[in-house]
Amino acid sequence: MRVDAAQYCNWSREIFAQMRQADLTAVVATLTYHGTLRAVVDEVMAWSDRFRDNADLIFHGRSAADLDRAREEGRTAIFFGLQNPMPMEDDLRLLEILHALGVTSFQITYNTQSLLGCGWTEPRDSGLTLMGREVVREMNRIGMLIDLSHAGERTAIEAIEASQRPVIISHANPIWWRETKRNVSDTLLEALAAKEGMIGLSLYPHHMKSGSDTTLAEFCGMAVKLSERIGITRIGIGSDLCQDQPDAVVNWMREGHWMRPAPNSVRAKFPRQPDWFSDCRGFNQIAEGLRTEGLSADQVRAVLGENWARFFKQALKPQAQ
Amino acid sequence: MRVDAAQYCNWSREIFAQMRQADLTAVVATLTYHGTLRAVVDEVMAWSDRFRDNADLIFHGRSAADLDRAREEGRTAIFFGLQNPMPMEDDLRLLEILHALGVTSFQITYNTQSLLGCGWTEPRDSGLTLMGREVVREMNRIGMLIDLSHAGERTAIEAIEASQRPVIISHANPIWWRETKRNVSDTLLEALAAKEGMIGLSLYPHHMKSGSDTTLAEFCGMAVKLSERIGITRIGIGSDLCQDQPDAVVNWMREGHWMRPAPNSVRAKFPRQPDWFSDCRGFNQIAEGLRTEGLSADQVRAVLGENWARFFKQALKPQAQ
Repeated sequence: MRVDAAQYCNWSREIFAQMRQADLTAVVATLTYHGTLRAVVDEVMAWSDRFRDNADLIFHGRSAADLDRAREEGRTAIFFGLQNPMPMEDDLRLLEILHALGVTSFQITYNTQSLLGCGWTEPRDSGLTLMGREVVREMNRIGMLIDLSHAGERTAIEAIEASQRPVIISHANPIWWRETKRNVSDTLLEALAAKEGMIGLSLYPHHMKSGSDTTLAEFCGMAVKLSERIGITRIGIGSDLCQDQPDAVVNWMREGHWMRPAPNSVRAKFPRQPDWFSDCRGFNQIAEGLRTEGLSADQVRAVLGENWARFFKQALKPQAQ
Repeated sequence: MRVDAAQYCNWSREIFAQMRQADLTAVVATLTYHGTLRAVVDEVMAWSDRFRDNADLIFHGRSAADLDRAREEGRTAIFFGLQNPMPMEDDLRLLEILHALGVTSFQITYNTQSLLGCGWTEPRDSGLTLMGREVVREMNRIGMLIDLSHAGERTAIEAIEASQRPVIISHANPIWWRETKRNVSDTLLEALAAKEGMIGLSLYPHHMKSGSDTTLAEFCGMAVKLSERIGITRIGIGSDLCQDQPDAVVNWMREGHWMRPAPNSVRAKFPRQPDWFSDCRGFNQIAEGLRTEGLSADQVRAVLGENWARFFKQALKPQAQ
């Protein structure tokens, strides 16, 4: 069972077909990076059309059972994720509404300050806010995945402490492999693993050692080294694949509408993906690469999806009263 | 010219008539404490009905000229304020929309963390956020009053530093008079005054020395003492009057929907107003009280409204390019 815990592609039938070629049982698709509840509703409606038009390849995944169903039916279950808590607005009750709409993964911050905590780009991180503590408790209750990607370190550590259930960092790499605050320190990795959380390793060039020129061997070597430090059961893939997106999208991701847009001359561009992961069929290359680096077939399966599948099956259950 | 920079009453014709008896030229009415743009739109529509039904007493104030118009016509100009930036959502462009709807005062935080900065109840205050800096610049440009009531000290200090124009604290008292983090330290008062900002003194019992039992002499004595420290031109009134509101409203103010409501047994109640300020006609008592404490007639007029009027006339202009 293969799982990708973070993608935001310019979705198409071609991409869904590639998911099948990659043997992906589940993909967590980011719905939006900005906006209020309405932005999520719009995306859910767009997905409704995609599920109708590509029912032979994909369906909407909501529960642990949908992972088994996807494997049995030879389709990919698309789970919905959010990379910014803004769509819950200032209303705790909207978490249940988002869950009803199918959102199962939820980042408590994106790059900047949210109502719940602080993102990695702010100069100072004051940690999990009063509302953030309420949200962690409510997500624990509902059975939504608390995702700490993009969080500031203090916020992430405090969220791990506050949560009664294991949490995830859906897409990032260790900071010792590529030094950027977007990646994750040893302190945070240890805190995550100590409470049985998981990290999804990212294939986004800005998170990788040599950017777009990172080799398969470098990536797989990092994965093996990390597995030796925090345990192989704590590791999965969260590719952060943004396939076929126009560059306007990366500017929107970064700037949303909260800041004045940068002038045309300094507009950002998506980095080039390494050739061994230009689309999700790169999972096949990673499988080979991890074997070359010395992992067993079982260990490779664990990293490429069995770990996430086991984790999701626990985490998506509502909390026992 | 008398001005009250902060009220949130359960609006009625009776209250508007009292404004006339208090000789109030302008009142800044809070539209909402929580919610998104839609909450503001709903309130603006409710005010539209009130302006229609009480056109002999009130009208919608939007500009410096409306202060003079109100005095000439013997009516009270109702300016719109927000005590929480949530209605701008995560979109800088909504500030212009809010301004078009008539919002002229805008708090960058309420009690808790906002996207712009930190409120006074959070355990840690990391200051003005990246988005907060954009918002201060945009408010400077548009000519909206940057209101630092309810902010954490670090956030308030950084907003004063970031703003190119004087800012306000619409309703609070000095912390040396009543010790609560909701009130304002000497450091903050000095920073505010040094950049020609203003503070509106609050008549809300929880901000006053002896709560509901605070005397007129105590309040006026504080005002005089503060005027000696930061200059009488820096002081006005922001009563925070919540006349005729049911207690459910104070619970909503505090909890919004961002937290689980407190159980019925610990629901909050509005404190009793002191008898000399049970409604806005208390401005007449304060006028007498300030005279008793030694202020001249001109100084009393300054504190009760001329200072705000002069300030508003500057602050509501768009910034010169």
